[in-house]
Amino acid sequence: MHTVEEALAQIAEALGAVRVRGESVPLAEALGRVLLADVRMDHDVPPFRRAAMDGFALATAEVEPGATFRIEQAVMAGEVPSGPIAGDAAARVMTGAPVPDGAVCVVPFEWTHDDGQTVTIDRVPRRPVHIVERGDHVAAGDVVLAAGAPVTPAALGALASAGVAAPEVALRPRVAIVGTGSELVPVDHTPGPGAIRNSNNATIAGQCRRAGADAVDLGIAPDDEDALRAAIRAGLEHDVLVLSGGVSRGDLDLVPGCLEAEGVRCLFHRWSVQPGGPLWLGAKQTPGGVRLVFGLPGNPAGVFVGFEVLVVPALRALLGMGLAPRRTLRARYQGPWGKPGPRRRFRPVILATDDRGMLVARAAPWRGSGDPFGLAGGDALAVFPESAPLPSGDHALVDVIPVHEADLLWGTR
Amino acid sequence: MHTVEEALAQIAEALGAVRVRGESVPLAEALGRVLLADVRMDHDVPPFRRAAMDGFALATAEVEPGATFRIEQAVMAGEVPSGPIAGDAAARVMTGAPVPDGAVCVVPFEWTHDDGQTVTIDRVPRRPVHIVERGDHVAAGDVVLAAGAPVTPAALGALASAGVAAPEVALRPRVAIVGTGSELVPVDHTPGPGAIRNSNNATIAGQCRRAGADAVDLGIAPDDEDALRAAIRAGLEHDVLVLSGGVSRGDLDLVPGCLEAEGVRCLFHRWSVQPGGPLWLGAKQTPGGVRLVFGLPGNPAGVFVGFEVLVVPALRALLGMGLAPRRTLRARYQGPWGKPGPRRRFRPVILATDDRGMLVARAAPWRGSGDPFGLAGGDALAVFPESAPLPSGDHALVDVIPVHEADLLWGTR
Repeated sequence: MHTVEEALAQIAEALGAVRVRGESVPLAEALGRVLLADVRMDHDVPPFRRAAMDGFALATAEVEPGATFRIEQAVMAGEVPSGPIAGDAAARVMTGAPVPDGAVCVVPFEWTHDDGQTVTIDRVPRRPVHIVERGDHVAAGDVVLAAGAPVTPAALGALASAGVAAPEVALRPRVAIVGTGSELVPVDHTPGPGAIRNSNNATIAGQCRRAGADAVDLGIAPDDEDALRAAIRAGLEHDVLVLSGGVSRGDLDLVPGCLEAEGVRCLFHRWSVQPGGPLWLGAKQTPGGVRLVFGLPGNPAGVFVGFEVLVVPALRALLGMGLAPRRTLRARYQGPWGKPGPRRRFRPVILATDDRGMLVARAAPWRGSGDPFGLAGGDALAVFPESAPLPSGDHALVDVIPVHEADLLWGTR
Repeated sequence: MHTVEEALAQIAEALGAVRVRGESVPLAEALGRVLLADVRMDHDVPPFRRAAMDGFALATAEVEPGATFRIEQAVMAGEVPSGPIAGDAAARVMTGAPVPDGAVCVVPFEWTHDDGQTVTIDRVPRRPVHIVERGDHVAAGDVVLAAGAPVTPAALGALASAGVAAPEVALRPRVAIVGTGSELVPVDHTPGPGAIRNSNNATIAGQCRRAGADAVDLGIAPDDEDALRAAIRAGLEHDVLVLSGGVSRGDLDLVPGCLEAEGVRCLFHRWSVQPGGPLWLGAKQTPGGVRLVFGLPGNPAGVFVGFEVLVVPALRALLGMGLAPRRTLRARYQGPWGKPGPRRRFRPVILATDDRGMLVARAAPWRGSGDPFGLAGGDALAVFPESAPLPSGDHALVDVIPVHEADLLWGTR
């Protein structure tokens, strides 16, 4: 039985050195994509010495209250000064406008009064003040966004400032999804006796998209060798194949055998994780590159945990972000601990902070691995280490993996 | 000058009772959308008493080690039992398969040995064991997802289980975006003297999409009354209009006047927030409903903060999630405090937890309101209350608003 760390090491070895393929997309479609290369600024920001306030630019900061200056020019944002200023000359300048050469400060309008020709200073500025120097924020050539960074709204603004109208981003990995089992019916069917709707494909497709990949839903393969092998062949046309169900050791768990018959090499067949011990990982070398194949268990909780803990890191690696375990935060756990065992346990929790700034992970309702709704009720997974003694008291700390960012941001629970 | 709370109250009053319009979308396109109505389960889950393990179903749990049973039938997942069991009859059952009537426990294969006709029990089960009762997870008619909930990957699975192949979700609000100022040039232009690229439209478009709205980029309006009014008229065809720039009291700050000339009623013109004091909020009644108009400041930091703190709650209200301030977490702040003032200050921070489970907000580099990159470096905004004394020591607590969920989840910093 592989630990989580051993499973990730197997994926790293199977993938080898990842050559990330890229494409150029319009800025308006770049949100959530991952940058393929460093983005450098093409010019100084700001590109000129500019006014940080609406006011009068002066050539001296040694001013007494009551001093007067001749208004020689006016510079709006988008304009250029008509020339330098010196001595008792002043320039009316707007926020964001270039200040004339020779200007050493800008006195805000509120500190002055003027008749259009002459301005009188009422309050004295400190020096240098309300002028932003050229290149103060970023110098030409500086890296403003690094390769492997996800494109956030603020990053879109940085790309726009750098003149990158069509950034190079990593191609989304294409993930084929196959639900297996003769008991499965499509979502729009009413299940007959003994049958259940295929919910795993929908969850997995959402997890793929959330992780930056494209989901290709290949539907249901029944417990029939020919049908299953045909679905596997179709799935292997994609970068990653994720199946659910059929990987236990039951009489009709045909998935491992069919995968091996299609040339997929088994890397391991169980991992020491609960929910979802049976998890088949394999890889196949094809002319198009390495295909990773994940045979997730059939129960919804095992699917969700296996995808978040193992498939998401693999997809991140394919996106050029490096292969790393999921990020964890440290939180105080509130809820039942269950029985410690030889397997690492993952349980849904709801995150919040208390008034002392402590991150608190409250157990979400959990009715066991077969419950399709248990994991929808949490915004993170708490990690109970394998074979660890039960913590006690108020200060029971656990690692948590945030998984539902929308909840964390919107606080909908 | 309005506080954040007064500004939100103005939006609530201008919007009145929001009637959310909905549409039906295929499950594969529902990720990130907001549910219009409660989703109820159409059947018991599980829909039948089912086996939770591969093993032998028995009609008694009073078993001694060495007891033998006749193997009368086998039930695979997706099949139905051929009849009830009683006495010394056993049924071979697979995980997920219905157990025959009369079954009270399932003894896992590992605890038995058999010759195909007779099974011998090696270890004795506790009772009742490895059978999930009908309706144990959810009963028919129970609400499994509530109106106003965002659709997460786990929610997709719940929708699929409930047979909802085309959920009703709130229409995305359509947000028109206009950057104002003659100094602005499009992203793919090289700025000449005094000019800068329009980065705000790209950031705002990303913020819209992240908040569940559609962004309609109407480009740049120069400091010209006719051009600006034409852009405003085009913008008022959408649910929300967001402008940036031109709302200070400078000579060319034409936005407020042009908005009022187009019939938009001013609700307020400044709020007590830093960065971005000038912020014009207005509303116009149209046959299509109330149009909200946000005149954000021109500097990138003021745009970002104004959008996250004020526009996002408005968009959430239009999505049927209710009008509420942004969710905050409580964190220990590490960084400079700056000078307390009469305005509420927002600063970019990077979130992590320490080994005691404390949420720590570390100041991200910040070069002032005009820096287009300062806010891209944080994953949350720290909130410094107006006019509060500076905290001191190790336990300085602040509220933080998480804003870049990708960073929080992926830990890319």
